[in-house]
Amino acid sequence: MCRWLAYSGAPVRLEELLFKPKNSLVMQSMHSQLGATTVNGDGFGIGWYDDQGRPGAYRSTEPAWNDRNLRDLSGVTSSRRVFAHIRATTGTAVQQSNCHPFRHENWLWMHNGVIGDFHLVKRDLAVAVDPALFADIEGSTDSELFFYLALSFGLRDDPPAAVARAVGVIEEAGRRHGVQQPIQMTVATTDGSTTWAFRYSSVHDSRSLFHSTDVSTLRDQYPDNPMLHELSDDARLVVSEPLGDLQGAWREVPESSYVVVHGAGEDLGSFAPVAP
Amino acid sequence: MCRWLAYSGAPVRLEELLFKPKNSLVMQSMHSQLGATTVNGDGFGIGWYDDQGRPGAYRSTEPAWNDRNLRDLSGVTSSRRVFAHIRATTGTAVQQSNCHPFRHENWLWMHNGVIGDFHLVKRDLAVAVDPALFADIEGSTDSELFFYLALSFGLRDDPPAAVARAVGVIEEAGRRHGVQQPIQMTVATTDGSTTWAFRYSSVHDSRSLFHSTDVSTLRDQYPDNPMLHELSDDARLVVSEPLGDLQGAWREVPESSYVVVHGAGEDLGSFAPVAP
Amino acid sequence: MCRWLAYSGAPVRLEELLFKPKNSLVMQSMHSQLGATTVNGDGFGIGWYDDQGRPGAYRSTEPAWNDRNLRDLSGVTSSRRVFAHIRATTGTAVQQSNCHPFRHENWLWMHNGVIGDFHLVKRDLAVAVDPALFADIEGSTDSELFFYLALSFGLRDDPPAAVARAVGVIEEAGRRHGVQQPIQMTVATTDGSTTWAFRYSSVHDSRSLFHSTDVSTLRDQYPDNPMLHELSDDARLVVSEPLGDLQGAWREVPESSYVVVHGAGEDLGSFAPVAP
Amino acid sequence: MCRWLAYSGAPVRLEELLFKPKNSLVMQSMHSQLGATTVNGDGFGIGWYDDQGRPGAYRSTEPAWNDRNLRDLSGVTSSRRVFAHIRATTGTAVQQSNCHPFRHENWLWMHNGVIGDFHLVKRDLAVAVDPALFADIEGSTDSELFFYLALSFGLRDDPPAAVARAVGVIEEAGRRHGVQQPIQMTVATTDGSTTWAFRYSSVHDSRSLFHSTDVSTLRDQYPDNPMLHELSDDARLVVSEPLGDLQGAWREVPESSYVVVHGAGEDLGSFAPVAP
Repeated sequence: MCRWLAYSGAPVRLEELLFKPKNSLVMQSMHSQLGATTVNGDGFGIGWYDDQGRPGAYRSTEPAWNDRNLRDLSGVTSSRRVFAHIRATTGTAVQQSNCHPFRHENWLWMHNGVIGDFHLVKRDLAVAVDPALFADIEGSTDSELFFYLALSFGLRDDPPAAVARAVGVIEEAGRRHGVQQPIQMTVATTDGSTTWAFRYSSVHDSRSLFHSTDVSTLRDQYPDNPMLHELSDDARLVVSEPLGDLQGAWREVPESSYVVVHGAGEDLGSFAPVAP
Repeated sequence: MCRWLAYSGAPVRLEELLFKPKNSLVMQSMHSQLGATTVNGDGFGIGWYDDQGRPGAYRSTEPAWNDRNLRDLSGVTSSRRVFAHIRATTGTAVQQSNCHPFRHENWLWMHNGVIGDFHLVKRDLAVAVDPALFADIEGSTDSELFFYLALSFGLRDDPPAAVARAVGVIEEAGRRHGVQQPIQMTVATTDGSTTWAFRYSSVHDSRSLFHSTDVSTLRDQYPDNPMLHELSDDARLVVSEPLGDLQGAWREVPESSYVVVHGAGEDLGSFAPVAP
Repeated sequence: MCRWLAYSGAPVRLEELLFKPKNSLVMQSMHSQLGATTVNGDGFGIGWYDDQGRPGAYRSTEPAWNDRNLRDLSGVTSSRRVFAHIRATTGTAVQQSNCHPFRHENWLWMHNGVIGDFHLVKRDLAVAVDPALFADIEGSTDSELFFYLALSFGLRDDPPAAVARAVGVIEEAGRRHGVQQPIQMTVATTDGSTTWAFRYSSVHDSRSLFHSTDVSTLRDQYPDNPMLHELSDDARLVVSEPLGDLQGAWREVPESSYVVVHGAGEDLGSFAPVAP
Repeated sequence: MCRWLAYSGAPVRLEELLFKPKNSLVMQSMHSQLGATTVNGDGFGIGWYDDQGRPGAYRSTEPAWNDRNLRDLSGVTSSRRVFAHIRATTGTAVQQSNCHPFRHENWLWMHNGVIGDFHLVKRDLAVAVDPALFADIEGSTDSELFFYLALSFGLRDDPPAAVARAVGVIEEAGRRHGVQQPIQMTVATTDGSTTWAFRYSSVHDSRSLFHSTDVSTLRDQYPDNPMLHELSDDARLVVSEPLGDLQGAWREVPESSYVVVHGAGEDLGSFAPVAP
């Protein structure tokens, strides 16, 4: 499995997100506290948008904890919207094209979890991808194929509906092949302006997912915490596990639901797959 | 495009094949003389069989010319049957899973050439792969997909017939999508006992392909050539381009034909695609 | 040997420098026109400063031409001062710590050329490095050791004097060991505000080095050239070889001299080693 | 810190040593039980000798647990003498030239531990290396520099004496710079015929080290254990931690001592540094 974070708010230097927090994502790459695996050392990736809204990415097969370039880039790169992901493979190869976040046009996508018995359902899912998109698939993971299913079902128009239909197709393919747990997922996706984050699993026992609460309230409560004072009022984080142990800073995203982050606001919706 | 060699004969240390000849494959990685590109620096791979017939492989995204491990391994590894390939990508990612030779069970496969407008035909070809094999595809190249098509059409039973049917499917898919040159290929494949090498292109203007001639005759002609005296009488090489400029050592494999190498003998057959 | 470029001026997106020019640095990595070697595929590196003057870097052992991260980063990163380097090793290992530009505090350094018979003089040169700096040396190249010699001799206070003394030490060590050509170099270094570029070789037959001329004049001459209109009036490039064939755009830096670029101005000085 | 194993005996396929045991070295790369760190994911290396006594090596910066080439090579490579090492860096870069085992001519060397405050003593130790060997140092680790000190002090003639002198020099340099714990080490070295393994630390609190006991006795005790029946009577392993939990199979190498393995015999000696 994996760990990830999605940031939005005033421009923040990447190292503030990736290296400085007590339980930072890079720290989690070697010592995850809530993950399915302690070590998430099978590559990593970051995606962000520049001040003109163009998406950039840096992905590597090295463990995040010892990648010198990640440290160097993080010190000089700032962005209003950052996706970061550390990978623990569930079987597919460790190669750049299998590192999250995946990108299509201005969209980013990252996933923690697994499509159950992927070997059995892979072909059915590949065939369900829009033929016009099929050849753009670059890697061999379940996560990227899931992204292309969501794109095929309208991610660019209505993300919650598209993800619901993609999950419906995955669950149906699973059932057809006798898979017990067709999908296990927390997923984040963004078009550069809004972030959607989903938490769901076929057996309703999903990986952890949290979002940060209002920064200004926290700042009053914790006047001495430097990280809070670096963040703008509209800063929001959605994370696989809290970056520190601050009481009240993190709220769990409930099972079978999704959160939409746009500006300083966040909305919660319930999530249910839509069968094909 | 790429360059490759296929060796069979008495056990030979890999460095004798890869580093020592004047126009060795490693030399060709930086300065190919007959290739479509001078530089073949987008990864490489070697496959070989141990003395119990088990296939091994070493594949890397580094250029062959500066891979220290390749040099070290080549000095201590000997084999009766060796496939080696240097890659110049025609567009797909530089990653280990895209490096030749590809392997399935005891079969190896390597390809120099291109499936024309691969982006257009990729989905049709993927769908034509035997569903039981589909999920074993690991990379994103045209060459590996070609291998899985051949496996789907009976490579393990009758290689020339299977390759003819695979090429037939590729050409038909190409024509359906208006591709001018559906395929350009030299391909080598082996089950560990016999090597088959094909030369074909839809427009009948194929990449170069040569096989070595009888070693004992050459040895008489060139009593002072050390490489010839290292090789056994039944040693045979099939190569994209000659490893040296010895007169009479290399014979061109004709356009639209294939050569079968088993022991000291080689047979030539003509090759024509079989439409689906 | 290698190829490099040093840019200063208004913030420019890295892809404008690295990918878009006709004879761009990435193009030179496979097809250098003036280099000692055609292929510069043994890794590369870029260094730049963010808007607060902090230096960042991205270095990789992949050939520049197929590094996906370089392409992605270059599209979303802008800087007022950029160093970029493509490497063709003269024998030392292909590893990140041997990729230029090297960095020490806010200084960057890159080198095209070679310390002659480096194996013979390496220990003498290492011993000449300031003991307080010795343990900061990370790689095994002649170029990085040259950087640490320059730092030891006052690079941070007076670059031309420090480089002259470093070269003096290198030439003396070479003569002591009977080396015919102790040094061959074009070197660029910067503190983030000024760039110094040197051209020298012990036998006075140095690698090519050019600097760009006044952009506003060129813009009048070539009203239709898009690249010139992207650049600010104070934009300056120092390069191993011209990025295009524009008449009048490039002026050769003479043998045994150096150029200092600060803002829109550049000064030329003569360079001679200072014996220890 | 790190973990390693040294095998000698009848030719054994590498996968028997690296992958098949319950607590195999590859398993230890993610879950070491006795190591200073749980994860040893900062590269790895193997060294072995072919049937003509030539040393080969494969070293990689990937974690051992996900290196596909390691798995492939291990299945087809057999050797009478194998060194294998998984790395957890104590600060120096993750690069091939820093991966153990290091090699010089026919000698291999690997180290678990650290030269204390290496940054402080590095220059003194580098200067103590035989000038004729200095330029052969390829990486930046304390472990490789320790190897070159041992070579400088006669490793090729009398390994225990040479290591004792090297450690003496390291401890003296440490004391000169106020280092509390100048060295912490388990070291293995071989010339291809004999293996020497040392356990020592300046504060007499060394990392774990074990050697296997007589295989034939064990075989009688455990008639159903498949691994024991794969090994020849003279098979011997020296390891950082036992590869399984077989009672009586492993004997701890005492603090401040070394073991010499030649053929089926092993001798134990006491180890004390020799001050310069």
